[in-house]
Amino acid sequence: MLAAVEPAVAVERTREAFLRHRAGEWEMPPKLYVDAPPNGDFRAMPARGGGFAILKWVTSYPGNPARGLPVVTGALLVSDDETGELVAILDCAAVTSLRTGAAAAVSALALGRDGAATVGIVGCGVNGSWAARCLAAVGYRDGVCADVDPGAADALASELGWSAGPLAAALACDVIVTVTPGAEPIIDAPDLAAGRHVVVVEYFENEGTSTIRFDYQLIAQP
Amino acid sequence: MLAAVEPAVAVERTREAFLRHRAGEWEMPPKLYVDAPPNGDFRAMPARGGGFAILKWVTSYPGNPARGLPVVTGALLVSDDETGELVAILDCAAVTSLRTGAAAAVSALALGRDGAATVGIVGCGVNGSWAARCLAAVGYRDGVCADVDPGAADALASELGWSAGPLAAALACDVIVTVTPGAEPIIDAPDLAAGRHVVVVEYFENEGTSTIRFDYQLIAQP
Repeated sequence: MLAAVEPAVAVERTREAFLRHRAGEWEMPPKLYVDAPPNGDFRAMPARGGGFAILKWVTSYPGNPARGLPVVTGALLVSDDETGELVAILDCAAVTSLRTGAAAAVSALALGRDGAATVGIVGCGVNGSWAARCLAAVGYRDGVCADVDPGAADALASELGWSAGPLAAALACDVIVTVTPGAEPIIDAPDLAAGRHVVVVEYFENEGTSTIRFDYQLIAQP
Repeated sequence: MLAAVEPAVAVERTREAFLRHRAGEWEMPPKLYVDAPPNGDFRAMPARGGGFAILKWVTSYPGNPARGLPVVTGALLVSDDETGELVAILDCAAVTSLRTGAAAAVSALALGRDGAATVGIVGCGVNGSWAARCLAAVGYRDGVCADVDPGAADALASELGWSAGPLAAALACDVIVTVTPGAEPIIDAPDLAAGRHVVVVEYFENEGTSTIRFDYQLIAQP
């Protein structure tokens, strides 16, 4: 998957997917949760459009990294909706990371202010790193990588020719991407200068507590 | 799948599965439908128990046989619910046929009258044939195979050492299994002698119209 689809292609395809979904070409019934306490849950996520019917069976096991296992794993099944035949089985982790990173870049391109050029990545794990790669692929430069684990920030900065830095330096960039598992807010309202664009990738997972102490919540994604 | 699990083993495992489900060891959230008109639909069917979380992604494309394609196809994903890891991907068609045939045998063993020995199979397609194989594997003898396609009835009868016969002969057996795609009732109330056990495999698919003209409906499986 990741070898077959370059980040810049993923960004363009993800942008197109959002537009097609908006145009009503795809239907996405609500995902179905299967709780597996205490470790996590499974999600069955169907979709249909473009001649296909798709089912993503994916985990969220937040404590897995401490056991050397991935948070996100599973398979994505792709069927032909004319014949019903199964045509592909894809690795969920790769699709999820690339789509998530690409969506961050689509968001920055569509909603960032004109001339936005620098990027702060807050949280340099799997999805933060793919957001960085996708943003770099569409022209963002001079990124600042921040992470409570300095090694993670250094590795990502080194890969992209960006720099590692403290949280405050990441928050001073034109575009900020937060992908953190914490339960504490990392941005206070005064940190948000006019024209700054914040992509809150893990907002839903953290029930709105992790990233920004909101005065106003403009968009909720159920 | 079919080579790995003998019909008699499938019957015992299916019986055990019903008992474990009844004991609350498995949860099965309602299946989620994705309609794909005009040809059929997809079903996302999750379940959890026994240390696993399972998702079956399966089609019902009733017109497919006329195009040389299967009605039922897809994949069944099996994950470890302790770690979230995907541990197996199974062929849906095989699981569905074997489970369906085994369930017919479990039903006959549990609900048929003492001494029931003969079986009438009405509809000798994929699932009717697996019901016959599972019933034969648990001791039913002298089966009568009926089908609007005499070739299908002959093939199944020949495989099992049973006989092909008309509908009336099948309906005179101790246990009757109907697996038909038709929309017309094939059993009228007077056909049902006391002590006869009817396993209506495709009742749900045919919205209750295909098999029996009911005076009373005792069990509805939503």
